Amino acid sequence: MGKVATAEAYRFMTDCLKAVGAAAKAAEQQAELLIQADRLGHPSHGLNRLEMYINDILSGACQPNNEPKILKESASTAWIDANNVLGATVSHFAMDVAVTKAKSTGVGWVTVKGSNHNGMAGWWAQKAADKGLIGMAFTNTSPLLAPTRSKQAALGTNPISVVAPASQGESFYLDMATTAVAVGKIEMQRRKGQPLPSGWAQGPDGRETTDADLGYNTGCLMPLGGGEQTSGYKGYGLAAMVELFCGISSGANYGHHVRSWSHSGEGGPANLGHCFVAVDPECFAPGFGDRLAEAIQHWRQLEPTDPNLPVLAPGDKEKKSAKETDERGTVSYVKQQIDSSAALAERLKVKPMDVMLDN
Amino acid sequence: MGKVATAEAYRFMTDCLKAVGAAAKAAEQQAELLIQADRLGHPSHGLNRLEMYINDILSGACQPNNEPKILKESASTAWIDANNVLGATVSHFAMDVAVTKAKSTGVGWVTVKGSNHNGMAGWWAQKAADKGLIGMAFTNTSPLLAPTRSKQAALGTNPISVVAPASQGESFYLDMATTAVAVGKIEMQRRKGQPLPSGWAQGPDGRETTDADLGYNTGCLMPLGGGEQTSGYKGYGLAAMVELFCGISSGANYGHHVRSWSHSGEGGPANLGHCFVAVDPECFAPGFGDRLAEAIQHWRQLEPTDPNLPVLAPGDKEKKSAKETDERGTVSYVKQQIDSSAALAERLKVKPMDVMLDN
Repeated sequence: MGKVATAEAYRFMTDCLKAVGAAAKAAEQQAELLIQADRLGHPSHGLNRLEMYINDILSGACQPNNEPKILKESASTAWIDANNVLGATVSHFAMDVAVTKAKSTGVGWVTVKGSNHNGMAGWWAQKAADKGLIGMAFTNTSPLLAPTRSKQAALGTNPISVVAPASQGESFYLDMATTAVAVGKIEMQRRKGQPLPSGWAQGPDGRETTDADLGYNTGCLMPLGGGEQTSGYKGYGLAAMVELFCGISSGANYGHHVRSWSHSGEGGPANLGHCFVAVDPECFAPGFGDRLAEAIQHWRQLEPTDPNLPVLAPGDKEKKSAKETDERGTVSYVKQQIDSSAALAERLKVKPMDVMLDN
Repeated sequence: MGKVATAEAYRFMTDCLKAVGAAAKAAEQQAELLIQADRLGHPSHGLNRLEMYINDILSGACQPNNEPKILKESASTAWIDANNVLGATVSHFAMDVAVTKAKSTGVGWVTVKGSNHNGMAGWWAQKAADKGLIGMAFTNTSPLLAPTRSKQAALGTNPISVVAPASQGESFYLDMATTAVAVGKIEMQRRKGQPLPSGWAQGPDGRETTDADLGYNTGCLMPLGGGEQTSGYKGYGLAAMVELFCGISSGANYGHHVRSWSHSGEGGPANLGHCFVAVDPECFAPGFGDRLAEAIQHWRQLEPTDPNLPVLAPGDKEKKSAKETDERGTVSYVKQQIDSSAALAERLKVKPMDVMLDN
């Protein structure tokens, strides 16, 4: 592990994106998205993803200096062409539209086509919550989820995120893939040389596997819920719902038409689809924030099964991680990540990331 | 098992509701909701629920002849007081409002307080889909879901339903509790004398149990995803999200404040909260229905793990059941259900349901 000042990791990511031609604002917004994921304890969506974005810019699959465009709109909706910009650029643009419409009509529902990977979905839902709204963000991704009973993957890890502001400094924060676990968790078990728990991944025969290598190489994650007996078809249904909101509504690539997962930047534009929703809770019963805070606090004080494992409210893990990161002022990366960042710095002629030794 | 002509079961349910004072339209709409559940293969939400509604009317907890009222509205939202009517009455009223707003602004988002159990969520989402819209329905329910790490239940089975029309006679139909399974499935294993699969229910010590009696008596269902290792906190997060849309937004009872599950009609008004959403896919990319149909058909033809178990699209089970019911013209009920309906007929002085012997 290596420790890096949070501001320095952000500087490095911004510099790399600028070095391959992204204008300052686009580079900064994308780097902010990545550093937020590292800060919230989701390293798979942080610096770890930088090289994928770089490669997509270098190959021409992503055009960071284009401008997103509204293709069609109504009082409460908009359909946007991302024009192949970075995911962060169009996600800011689209959620701003959703927020403006929600402030005017109560709801904004925006779909996006022609986009690239837009990172941690929660960051976009949070953007609406910061304006006092219920924010939601959905995106499709490369096929990795095997529908119940299927040998093959046909949907992405298609995340659902909902964030809402509450009283007393509380907030509701949900950001979840609709697969049982993300690919990163399979990779982690593999590195540790440990078997996979039941319900995470399938082997090439379509059956559940506990072999981490086999699970990783097959690339067929099980939906949330696992097998059919434990209602994995619900996770499959949720992933399909996300696709309906994203690629199918926006006319982006969808489901099996989305390019395979790769860091190579090959395969042309990703043409991913997203969906952003903002709803104004002021349109309903007064006291929304108080009720939400009371519910959150009730969940936390429920009697735990194991006294050492207190019940958490959705988002508590992320908030704890963010607080600790901010107190330390540093983020930590595994050695492999530090090494590949050094190689990237050299390749792009960018000032390398200043890494402190970890204790 | 006993077979009953579908029309006769509907007649019986309507008569019972009228016998306890519900006006014709209210009785018919509620009976239609129940017969649709039996028709779609969800018997737990069909005739099985009738007595609960009857008891709530008799105790005065439900006032079937009140009128729901819009308390506040904006271009795309409405906040409704159900005024304690039957769930079907206010759900028709509220989804009609959502549909009208969606036709005008692109989206309708409606929350309801002061309501009663509104049955199968999919029936309400379907209502919007029948008008060419993406329909969504959510409701809170009595506490039965134990948040991850908790010994106690604190949320309902809080269903999510999304239904959307597609080309070529296809449609997307998702209607799922956010618990791993519904109570009815625990009851079924218990009747069969079989153990529960892992990940369904907890015992009084807060640990997963495979003992069907213990699971049934404890009344603590596990969220979709099961235990923490298989991401049960995602199912918990989804149930909490539904509560945020329903009771917390509408000012109805929410979470632990919702009355316990019972058929007794005691405990006063349920004051449940619902949420209904309609979105017009015409506001986005042309060709929505074609893409959705293509995706659905792709999922069905995926290579299955077991050649005898073809991959299904969300809703295929329900459509098959509806088709078979319509071809037969009858619904089937277990003996216990037939017997309790006969007792109910006698109690309410209603013509008993005409039951044919099953073969």
